[in-house]
Amino acid sequence: MRADARRNRARVLEAAEVVLARDGLDASMREIAALAGVGVGTIYRQFPTKEALYAAIVTDRQERLAEMAEELAGAADAGAAFFEFFDRIVAYSTVKKILVDALTSAGIDAKAGAPDIKGAISALLERAQRAGAVRPDVGMAELLALLSAACLAAQHHDWSDDLRARALAVLFDGLRRATPATGA
Amino acid sequence: MRADARRNRARVLEAAEVVLARDGLDASMREIAALAGVGVGTIYRQFPTKEALYAAIVTDRQERLAEMAEELAGAADAGAAFFEFFDRIVAYSTVKKILVDALTSAGIDAKAGAPDIKGAISALLERAQRAGAVRPDVGMAELLALLSAACLAAQHHDWSDDLRARALAVLFDGLRRATPATGA
Repeated sequence: MRADARRNRARVLEAAEVVLARDGLDASMREIAALAGVGVGTIYRQFPTKEALYAAIVTDRQERLAEMAEELAGAADAGAAFFEFFDRIVAYSTVKKILVDALTSAGIDAKAGAPDIKGAISALLERAQRAGAVRPDVGMAELLALLSAACLAAQHHDWSDDLRARALAVLFDGLRRATPATGA
Repeated sequence: MRADARRNRARVLEAAEVVLARDGLDASMREIAALAGVGVGTIYRQFPTKEALYAAIVTDRQERLAEMAEELAGAADAGAAFFEFFDRIVAYSTVKKILVDALTSAGIDAKAGAPDIKGAISALLERAQRAGAVRPDVGMAELLALLSAACLAAQHHDWSDDLRARALAVLFDGLRRATPATGA
Protein backbone atom coordinates (compact mmCIF):
# COMPACT_ATOMS: atom_id res chain seq x y z
CA MET A 1 0.00 0.00 0.00
CA ARG A 2 1.34 3.46 -0.90
CA ALA A 3 2.07 5.88 1.92
CA ASP A 4 -0.84 8.21 1.13
CA ALA A 5 -3.22 5.27 0.81
CA ARG A 6 -2.03 4.02 4.18
CA ARG A 7 -2.54 7.46 5.71
CA ASN A 8 -6.02 7.66 4.21
CA ARG A 9 -6.86 4.23 5.53
CA ALA A 10 -5.76 5.17 9.05
CA ARG A 11 -7.75 8.41 8.89
CA VAL A 12 -10.87 6.61 7.67
CA LEU A 13 -10.63 4.02 10.47
CA GLU A 14 -10.13 6.72 13.08
CA ALA A 15 -13.06 8.77 11.78
CA ALA A 16 -15.24 5.66 11.61
CA GLU A 17 -14.56 4.93 15.27
CA VAL A 18 -15.56 8.44 16.29
CA VAL A 19 -18.78 8.39 14.23
CA LEU A 20 -19.63 4.84 15.36
CA ALA A 21 -19.12 5.70 19.01
CA ARG A 22 -21.47 8.66 18.56
CA ASP A 23 -24.14 7.27 16.20
CA GLY A 24 -23.85 3.54 16.72
CA LEU A 25 -24.80 1.43 13.74
CA ASP A 26 -26.70 4.30 12.11
CA ALA A 27 -23.31 5.81 11.34
CA SER A 28 -23.28 7.00 7.75
CA MET A 29 -20.37 6.45 5.37
CA ARG A 30 -20.86 10.05 4.21
CA GLU A 31 -20.19 11.44 7.70
CA ILE A 32 -17.22 9.16 8.19
CA ALA A 33 -15.78 10.39 4.87
CA ALA A 34 -16.41 14.03 5.81
CA LEU A 35 -14.67 13.63 9.18
CA ALA A 36 -11.74 11.81 7.58
CA GLY A 37 -11.49 14.50 4.90
CA VAL A 38 -11.75 12.04 2.01
CA GLY A 39 -14.40 11.32 -0.59
CA VAL A 40 -16.98 8.59 -0.04
CA GLY A 41 -15.53 6.85 -3.11
CA THR A 42 -12.17 6.56 -1.36
CA ILE A 43 -13.80 4.67 1.51
CA TYR A 44 -15.75 2.34 -0.75
CA ARG A 45 -12.64 1.49 -2.77
CA GLN A 46 -10.94 0.16 0.36
CA PHE A 47 -14.05 -1.06 2.19
CA PRO A 48 -16.75 -2.21 -0.24
CA THR A 49 -19.23 -2.84 2.60
CA LYS A 50 -19.88 -1.46 6.06
CA GLU A 51 -18.99 -4.89 7.40
CA ALA A 52 -15.57 -4.73 5.74
CA LEU A 53 -15.04 -1.35 7.40
CA TYR A 54 -16.15 -2.62 10.82
CA ALA A 55 -13.95 -5.70 10.54
CA ALA A 56 -10.98 -3.48 9.64
CA ILE A 57 -11.60 -1.30 12.71
CA VAL A 58 -11.65 -4.33 14.98
CA THR A 59 -8.49 -5.81 13.44
CA ASP A 60 -6.78 -2.44 13.50
CA ARG A 61 -7.58 -1.82 17.17
CA GLN A 62 -6.50 -5.31 18.13
CA GLU A 63 -3.23 -4.80 16.34
CA ARG A 64 -2.75 -1.45 18.05
CA LEU A 65 -3.46 -3.02 21.43
CA ALA A 66 -0.95 -5.78 20.71
CA GLU A 67 1.64 -3.20 19.59
CA MET A 68 0.96 -1.12 22.66
CA ALA A 69 1.45 -4.18 24.87
CA GLU A 70 4.82 -4.81 23.23
CA GLU A 71 5.93 -1.22 23.80
CA LEU A 72 4.66 -1.22 27.38
CA ALA A 73 6.48 -4.49 28.10
CA GLY A 74 9.73 -2.51 27.97
CA ALA A 75 8.53 0.66 29.70
CA ALA A 76 10.63 2.00 32.56
CA ASP A 77 7.67 2.25 34.93
CA ALA A 78 6.23 -1.27 35.04
CA GLY A 79 3.31 -0.23 37.25
CA ALA A 80 2.25 2.66 35.03
CA ALA A 81 2.55 0.38 31.98
CA PHE A 82 0.25 -2.23 33.51
CA PHE A 83 -2.41 0.30 34.54
CA GLU A 84 -2.19 2.11 31.19
CA PHE A 85 -2.91 -1.11 29.32
CA PHE A 86 -5.83 -1.95 31.62
CA ASP A 87 -7.29 1.52 31.01
CA ARG A 88 -6.89 1.28 27.22
CA ILE A 89 -8.70 -2.05 27.08
CA VAL A 90 -11.65 -0.67 29.05
CA ALA A 91 -11.72 2.53 26.99
CA TYR A 92 -11.81 0.46 23.82
CA SER A 93 -14.45 -1.98 25.01
CA THR A 94 -17.42 0.29 24.29
CA VAL A 95 -16.81 0.83 20.61
CA LYS A 96 -15.62 -2.76 20.32
CA LYS A 97 -18.95 -4.10 21.54
CA ILE A 98 -20.91 -2.08 18.97
CA LEU A 99 -18.65 -3.37 16.22
CA VAL A 100 -18.52 -6.99 17.30
CA ASP A 101 -22.33 -7.07 17.67
CA ALA A 102 -22.72 -5.63 14.17
CA LEU A 103 -20.25 -8.11 12.71
CA THR A 104 -21.81 -11.05 14.53
CA SER A 105 -25.28 -10.13 13.27
CA ALA A 106 -23.78 -10.00 9.75
CA GLY A 107 -22.48 -13.53 10.29
CA ILE A 108 -18.82 -12.51 10.65
CA ASP A 109 -16.71 -13.91 13.46
CA ALA A 110 -14.97 -10.78 14.71
CA LYS A 111 -12.77 -12.77 17.03
CA ALA A 112 -11.23 -14.93 14.32
CA GLY A 113 -7.55 -14.19 14.05
CA ALA A 114 -7.57 -11.78 16.98
CA PRO A 115 -4.22 -11.75 18.75
CA ASP A 116 -4.57 -13.15 22.24
CA ILE A 117 -3.95 -10.27 24.65
CA LYS A 118 -4.15 -12.45 27.75
CA GLY A 119 -0.48 -13.32 27.33
CA ALA A 120 0.38 -9.63 27.14
CA ILE A 121 -1.70 -8.85 30.23
CA SER A 122 -0.05 -11.69 32.14
CA ALA A 123 3.43 -10.43 31.21
CA LEU A 124 2.60 -6.84 32.22
CA LEU A 125 1.10 -8.08 35.49
CA GLU A 126 4.16 -10.15 36.38
CA ARG A 127 6.49 -7.27 35.63
CA ALA A 128 4.40 -4.82 37.68
CA GLN A 129 4.33 -7.29 40.57
CA ARG A 130 8.09 -7.78 40.44
CA ALA A 131 8.47 -3.98 40.56
CA GLY A 132 6.23 -3.89 43.64
CA ALA A 133 3.61 -1.76 41.87
CA VAL A 134 0.90 -4.43 41.98
CA ARG A 135 0.21 -6.54 45.04
CA PRO A 136 1.78 -10.00 44.79
CA ASP A 137 -1.34 -11.92 45.79
CA VAL A 138 -3.39 -10.96 42.72
CA GLY A 139 -3.70 -13.77 40.18
CA MET A 140 -4.82 -13.73 36.56
CA ALA A 141 -8.26 -15.17 37.45
CA GLU A 142 -9.35 -12.22 39.57
CA LEU A 143 -7.50 -9.74 37.40
CA LEU A 144 -9.38 -10.88 34.28
CA ALA A 145 -12.61 -10.98 36.31
CA LEU A 146 -12.12 -7.32 37.29
CA LEU A 147 -11.02 -6.29 33.80
CA SER A 148 -14.05 -7.96 32.29
CA ALA A 149 -16.26 -6.33 34.93
CA ALA A 150 -14.99 -2.88 34.01
CA CYS A 151 -15.39 -3.58 30.28
CA LEU A 152 -18.95 -4.89 30.69
CA ALA A 153 -20.03 -1.92 32.79
CA ALA A 154 -18.35 0.55 30.44
CA GLN A 155 -20.26 -1.03 27.55
CA HIS A 156 -23.53 -1.42 29.37
CA HIS A 157 -23.68 2.04 30.92
CA ASP A 158 -21.63 3.86 28.30
CA TRP A 159 -19.08 5.17 30.81
CA SER A 160 -17.79 8.68 30.17
CA ASP A 161 -14.03 9.23 30.25
CA ASP A 162 -14.48 10.89 33.63
CA LEU A 163 -16.45 8.03 35.17
CA ARG A 164 -13.98 5.50 33.78
CA ALA A 165 -11.10 7.44 35.34
CA ARG A 166 -12.81 7.63 38.73
CA ALA A 167 -13.94 3.99 38.81
CA LEU A 168 -10.57 2.68 37.64
CA ALA A 169 -8.72 4.87 40.17
CA VAL A 170 -10.46 2.95 42.96
CA LEU A 171 -9.89 -0.40 41.29
CA PHE A 172 -6.22 0.37 40.64
CA ASP A 173 -5.65 1.32 44.26
CA GLY A 174 -7.05 -2.08 45.19
CA LEU A 175 -4.62 -3.71 42.77
CA ARG A 176 -1.69 -1.75 44.17
CA ARG A 177 -1.66 -3.19 47.60
CA ALA A 178 -3.62 -5.12 50.17
CA THR A 179 -4.97 -3.36 53.21
CA PRO A 180 -3.94 -5.12 56.43
CA ALA A 181 -6.87 -7.11 57.81
CA THR A 182 -7.13 -4.66 60.71
CA GLY A 183 -7.64 -1.80 58.28
CA ALA A 184 -11.37 -2.33 57.84
CA MET B 1 -51.32 -16.20 56.11
CA ARG B 2 -51.03 -18.93 58.74
CA ALA B 3 -47.63 -19.63 60.25
CA ASP B 4 -47.19 -23.02 58.55
CA ALA B 5 -48.28 -21.59 55.20
CA ARG B 6 -45.73 -18.78 55.64
CA ARG B 7 -43.01 -21.28 56.49
CA ASN B 8 -43.93 -23.38 53.45
CA ARG B 9 -43.85 -20.32 51.24
CA ALA B 10 -40.37 -19.36 52.48
CA ARG B 11 -39.13 -22.94 51.96
CA VAL B 12 -40.53 -23.08 48.44
CA LEU B 13 -38.92 -19.77 47.49
CA GLU B 14 -35.58 -20.85 48.92
CA ALA B 15 -35.71 -24.21 47.12
CA ALA B 16 -36.75 -22.51 43.89
CA GLU B 17 -33.68 -20.25 44.04
CA VAL B 18 -31.37 -23.22 44.49
CA VAL B 19 -32.94 -25.19 41.62
CA LEU B 20 -33.08 -22.12 39.36
CA ALA B 21 -29.43 -21.27 40.02
CA ARG B 22 -28.52 -24.84 39.08
CA ASP B 23 -30.90 -25.62 36.19
CA GLY B 24 -31.82 -22.15 34.93
CA LEU B 25 -35.21 -21.86 33.35
CA ASP B 26 -35.48 -25.63 32.84
CA ALA B 27 -36.03 -25.87 36.59
CA SER B 28 -38.93 -28.21 37.27
CA MET B 29 -41.68 -27.51 39.81
CA ARG B 30 -41.40 -31.15 40.87
CA GLU B 31 -37.75 -30.76 41.87
CA ILE B 32 -38.44 -27.51 43.66
CA ALA B 33 -41.23 -29.23 45.60
CA ALA B 34 -38.97 -32.17 46.46
CA LEU B 35 -36.20 -29.91 47.73
CA ALA B 36 -38.66 -27.83 49.74
CA GLY B 37 -40.20 -30.99 51.19
CA VAL B 38 -43.73 -30.12 50.08
CA GLY B 39 -46.12 -31.52 47.48
CA VAL B 40 -46.29 -30.03 44.01
CA GLY B 41 -49.91 -29.15 44.76
CA THR B 42 -48.79 -26.94 47.63
CA ILE B 43 -46.63 -24.91 45.25
CA TYR B 44 -49.35 -24.57 42.62
CA ARG B 45 -51.87 -23.40 45.21
CA GLN B 46 -49.64 -20.43 46.09
CA PHE B 47 -48.03 -19.95 42.68
CA PRO B 48 -50.39 -20.96 39.87
CA THR B 49 -47.73 -20.31 37.22
CA LYS B 50 -43.95 -20.41 37.02
CA GLU B 51 -44.04 -16.66 36.40
CA ALA B 52 -45.89 -16.10 39.67
CA LEU B 53 -43.19 -18.11 41.44
CA TYR B 54 -40.37 -16.20 39.74
CA ALA B 55 -41.99 -12.86 40.55
CA ALA B 56 -42.34 -13.91 44.19
CA ILE B 57 -38.65 -14.83 44.37
CA VAL B 58 -37.63 -11.45 42.99
CA THR B 59 -39.94 -9.57 45.37
CA ASP B 60 -38.83 -11.73 48.28
CA ARG B 61 -35.12 -11.19 47.61
CA GLN B 62 -35.61 -7.46 47.18
CA GLU B 63 -37.45 -7.32 50.48
CA ARG B 64 -34.71 -9.32 52.16
CA LEU B 65 -32.06 -6.99 50.74
CA ALA B 66 -34.00 -3.98 51.99
CA GLU B 67 -34.38 -5.60 55.42
CA MET B 68 -30.68 -6.45 55.48
CA ALA B 69 -29.83 -2.84 54.62
CA GLU B 70 -31.93 -1.66 57.55
CA GLU B 71 -30.20 -4.05 59.94
CA LEU B 72 -26.76 -3.16 58.61
CA ALA B 73 -27.50 0.55 58.97
CA GLY B 74 -27.25 0.08 62.74
CA ALA B 75 -24.34 -2.39 62.78
CA ALA B 76 -21.43 -1.64 65.10
CA ASP B 77 -18.82 -2.06 62.34
CA ALA B 78 -19.88 0.42 59.64
CA GLY B 79 -17.15 -0.72 57.26
CA ALA B 80 -18.00 -4.40 57.52
CA ALA B 81 -21.69 -3.55 57.06
CA PHE B 82 -21.00 -1.62 53.87
CA PHE B 83 -18.83 -4.36 52.35
CA GLU B 84 -21.26 -7.10 53.42
CA PHE B 85 -24.10 -5.37 51.59
CA PHE B 86 -21.99 -4.89 48.46
CA ASP B 87 -21.09 -8.59 48.51
CA ARG B 88 -24.71 -9.70 48.97
CA ILE B 89 -25.90 -7.63 46.00
CA VAL B 90 -23.24 -9.14 43.76
CA ALA B 91 -23.95 -12.67 45.03
CA TYR B 92 -27.64 -12.19 44.31
CA SER B 93 -27.16 -10.69 40.86
CA THR B 94 -26.67 -13.99 39.04
CA VAL B 95 -29.94 -15.64 40.02
CA LYS B 96 -31.66 -12.27 39.72
CA LYS B 97 -30.67 -11.97 36.07
CA ILE B 98 -32.08 -15.40 35.20
CA LEU B 99 -35.35 -14.50 36.89
CA VAL B 100 -35.68 -11.00 35.52
CA ASP B 101 -34.96 -12.25 31.99
CA ALA B 102 -37.60 -14.96 32.38
CA LEU B 103 -40.14 -12.47 33.72
CA THR B 104 -39.36 -9.92 31.02
CA SER B 105 -39.80 -12.51 28.28
CA ALA B 106 -43.17 -13.37 29.85
CA GLY B 107 -44.09 -9.69 29.62
CA ILE B 108 -43.83 -9.02 33.36
CA ASP B 109 -41.95 -5.94 34.60
CA ALA B 110 -39.86 -7.43 37.39
CA LYS B 111 -38.68 -4.01 38.49
CA ALA B 112 -42.16 -2.64 39.18
CA GLY B 113 -42.55 -1.95 42.87
CA ALA B 114 -38.96 -2.89 43.69
CA PRO B 115 -37.70 -0.96 46.71
CA ASP B 116 -34.94 1.44 45.70
CA ILE B 117 -31.75 0.16 47.29
CA LYS B 118 -29.67 3.12 46.11
CA GLY B 119 -30.77 5.07 49.17
CA ALA B 120 -29.68 2.21 51.41
CA ILE B 121 -26.31 1.96 49.66
CA SER B 122 -25.78 5.70 49.98
CA ALA B 123 -26.54 5.61 53.72
CA LEU B 124 -24.19 2.65 54.29
CA LEU B 125 -21.47 4.38 52.27
CA GLU B 126 -21.74 7.62 54.23
CA ARG B 127 -21.61 5.80 57.53
CA ALA B 128 -18.59 3.74 56.46
CA GLN B 129 -16.85 6.90 55.29
CA ARG B 130 -17.55 8.68 58.58
CA ALA B 131 -16.06 5.68 60.38
CA GLY B 132 -12.94 5.94 58.20
CA ALA B 133 -13.50 2.48 56.71
CA VAL B 134 -14.10 3.74 53.17
CA ARG B 135 -12.00 6.47 51.56
CA PRO B 136 -13.69 9.85 51.68
CA ASP B 137 -13.16 10.68 48.00
CA VAL B 138 -15.41 7.92 46.64
CA GLY B 139 -18.76 9.19 45.40
CA MET B 140 -21.96 7.34 44.57
CA ALA B 141 -21.33 7.60 40.81
CA GLU B 142 -18.14 5.53 40.84
CA LEU B 143 -19.41 3.29 43.63
CA LEU B 144 -22.51 2.34 41.62
CA ALA B 145 -20.33 1.97 38.51
CA LEU B 146 -18.10 -0.53 40.32
CA LEU B 147 -21.04 -2.34 41.91
CA SER B 148 -22.73 -2.67 38.54
CA ALA B 149 -19.45 -3.83 37.01
CA ALA B 150 -19.13 -6.63 39.57
CA CYS B 151 -22.78 -7.64 39.11
CA LEU B 152 -22.52 -7.72 35.31
CA ALA B 153 -19.35 -9.81 35.37
CA ALA B 154 -20.77 -12.17 38.00
CA GLN B 155 -23.83 -12.68 35.77
CA HIS B 156 -21.94 -12.88 32.51
CA HIS B 157 -19.20 -15.25 33.63
CA ASP B 158 -21.14 -17.03 36.36
CA TRP B 159 -18.62 -16.19 39.10
CA SER B 160 -18.04 -18.90 41.67
CA ASP B 161 -18.15 -17.91 45.35
CA ASP B 162 -14.38 -18.17 45.40
CA LEU B 163 -13.83 -15.90 42.41
CA ARG B 164 -16.32 -13.39 43.77
CA ALA B 165 -14.47 -13.33 47.08
CA ARG B 166 -11.10 -12.83 45.40
CA ALA B 167 -12.26 -10.15 42.96
CA LEU B 168 -14.19 -8.24 45.61
CA ALA B 169 -11.25 -8.41 48.03
CA VAL B 170 -9.21 -6.37 45.54
CA LEU B 171 -12.07 -3.96 44.86
CA PHE B 172 -12.77 -3.50 48.56
CA ASP B 173 -9.14 -2.68 49.27
CA GLY B 174 -9.41 0.02 46.62
CA LEU B 175 -12.50 1.37 48.34
CA ARG B 176 -10.78 1.38 51.72
CA ARG B 177 -8.15 3.94 50.99
CA ALA B 178 -6.31 5.81 48.30
CA THR B 179 -2.70 5.00 47.59
CA PRO B 180 -0.51 8.13 47.72
CA ALA B 181 0.32 9.29 44.19
CA THR B 182 3.92 8.25 44.72
CA GLY B 183 2.81 4.72 45.52
CA ALA B 184 2.61 3.56 41.89
